[in-house]
Amino acid sequence: MSPHHGGPGKTNLVTAQLREAPPPAGDIDRLIASVADRMAKVNALIVSHAGSDVAMIPEIADHLVSSGGKRIRPMLTLATAAMFGYSGDGDVKLATAVEYMHTATLLHDDVVDESGMRRGKPTARLIWGNQASVLVGDFLLGQAFKLMVEVGSLDALDIFARAAATISEGEVRQLAGAKNLSVGEGHYMAVIEAKTAALFAAATAAGPIVAGAPEHRAALESYGRHLGLAFQLIDDVLDYEGDAEQLGKNVGDDLREGKATLPVLLAYERGNEADRAFWRRCIEEGDVRDGDVQAAARRVKDTGALYDSRERARAFAQQSVKDLSTAPASEMRDILESVVYFTLSRLN
Amino acid sequence: MSPHHGGPGKTNLVTAQLREAPPPAGDIDRLIASVADRMAKVNALIVSHAGSDVAMIPEIADHLVSSGGKRIRPMLTLATAAMFGYSGDGDVKLATAVEYMHTATLLHDDVVDESGMRRGKPTARLIWGNQASVLVGDFLLGQAFKLMVEVGSLDALDIFARAAATISEGEVRQLAGAKNLSVGEGHYMAVIEAKTAALFAAATAAGPIVAGAPEHRAALESYGRHLGLAFQLIDDVLDYEGDAEQLGKNVGDDLREGKATLPVLLAYERGNEADRAFWRRCIEEGDVRDGDVQAAARRVKDTGALYDSRERARAFAQQSVKDLSTAPASEMRDILESVVYFTLSRLN
Repeated sequence: MSPHHGGPGKTNLVTAQLREAPPPAGDIDRLIASVADRMAKVNALIVSHAGSDVAMIPEIADHLVSSGGKRIRPMLTLATAAMFGYSGDGDVKLATAVEYMHTATLLHDDVVDESGMRRGKPTARLIWGNQASVLVGDFLLGQAFKLMVEVGSLDALDIFARAAATISEGEVRQLAGAKNLSVGEGHYMAVIEAKTAALFAAATAAGPIVAGAPEHRAALESYGRHLGLAFQLIDDVLDYEGDAEQLGKNVGDDLREGKATLPVLLAYERGNEADRAFWRRCIEEGDVRDGDVQAAARRVKDTGALYDSRERARAFAQQSVKDLSTAPASEMRDILESVVYFTLSRLN
Repeated sequence: MSPHHGGPGKTNLVTAQLREAPPPAGDIDRLIASVADRMAKVNALIVSHAGSDVAMIPEIADHLVSSGGKRIRPMLTLATAAMFGYSGDGDVKLATAVEYMHTATLLHDDVVDESGMRRGKPTARLIWGNQASVLVGDFLLGQAFKLMVEVGSLDALDIFARAAATISEGEVRQLAGAKNLSVGEGHYMAVIEAKTAALFAAATAAGPIVAGAPEHRAALESYGRHLGLAFQLIDDVLDYEGDAEQLGKNVGDDLREGKATLPVLLAYERGNEADRAFWRRCIEEGDVRDGDVQAAARRVKDTGALYDSRERARAFAQQSVKDLSTAPASEMRDILESVVYFTLSRLN
């Protein structure tokens, strides 16, 4: 058992330590400001490469573009390229490819999860149907692939090819273990390594590669991987404690979709027979009733599952900051460090 | 209006000409024999790269592998590489990637078309569900991408990236025009150019590229494109005249799935009001009743729609043979020419 889900005594000790030294608050605005010019080009490419005389393609692309994610992944590619003094236009193309890969994954995920809402807006599959979501996802993957080939770096292509294979394997793994509380934490970690950390790692590895600083690839890849793990853990925590308006998607979605995320797995492990019956009904039988989201939120809080999931995220965040420390000191390095702390403190 | 769908008088003239000079019967066995050793390696790679500890992935891959398509696309890559004296192992990897791309497309297609049977076997989506079909399709695309990167040819990557983008755009175009008889032949041709001809063209362009004979790329790409167009047209014809046992898939599938293929578009265009009402009911309203498949087969035959669709295929086949004639004479060139004629004469 890892140090992050010990008994209550252990938890209290960790709490005490944290009270003494809270992590910095973090900031994503500096990242946004530092890559704003480049992101404008990425946003233009996102729109132009999703152009087609098949009207459904730009329609769905516009819907996704206007649904306003933070676009943290492409910003990370731009920032890690800028960090090593890159001044070409390959970073913009790779960043666009990263966002397309992410968007394609969301489109296919929504079909697989039968999701109705994402960030407070109806999903593409609800508006255009599952069929269009599958095919437009494929289209965006094809465009991503084309953009990467245009950049012409075999190392960058290798990074993204591996990520694509890893992500989809993780998605199948997640599906195979869906609605199942006995999968265990190892399964959960393998899934988030693949479906989230792999693309973050590819996004941050691509920066030094396109900038001609391959000696920093390993450190930046590890930075992205750990950041991605922290990011996903917090995402899964926020699904049980976030404010629905701030989160911009429905709190409780994971419960309703039967996802056995870490907070649930820990609460299930620690619960009494009544708790376990509750989780089995919601997650395994898919029978989620009025008030269950609130009841689930109470259970993950009261068992310390939420707290320990945050702790796990915090440990990965520390790793991420450590990975970064091997890169030369620079303003961009500070900014990327601040992003890690932002990931921990974010409310949505 | 193109010369291939003139009135009955024109059709009779063409018939007369053809009676005088029937095309060679064609043969695919020579192709199969000539690349058998390399195909054994492709088949081994197909299995090994679909390995995963996520059991669903090899299960679905095995199902697809054992469902026994002809694998004409990877054979074309091997043959076009051998034609220019290639002796490395890049052809095997690219051929495997081609088959993965094709298989991924089939998996996603079956989800989009809600197909129950393919080649006389239940589709993967019927056994494992739509969700697994979407995600395993993505996994195979990721593996294809990895294999291409391993070969390390940016030109080959460019060929397949363009094909991937074209194929998926064509799939969306097809979806947008589904169950619609007013889309016209231009729409039909654009769809088959994208969803079939693009991958054939990539498969045959990859051969000279990996073999270091880029000066023959354009001719071989055009050969594959025209061959693909002929292949798809015959496929669409066979759906109305094939023998269900020989074809290995249900004759009438296209009708039941509401596909406005060329035979249907021509029969609709030439039919009287009763014919048109029949097609609208089957294709646009999706109301296919007992005996309709037979009635549809009669209509596409009696209006000459089937004949003229074959004629269209024959014209593309002639183009394909002509493209090939610019390559140096060789046994492999003869074999590839014979494949074109086989495409026209095949019964399944």
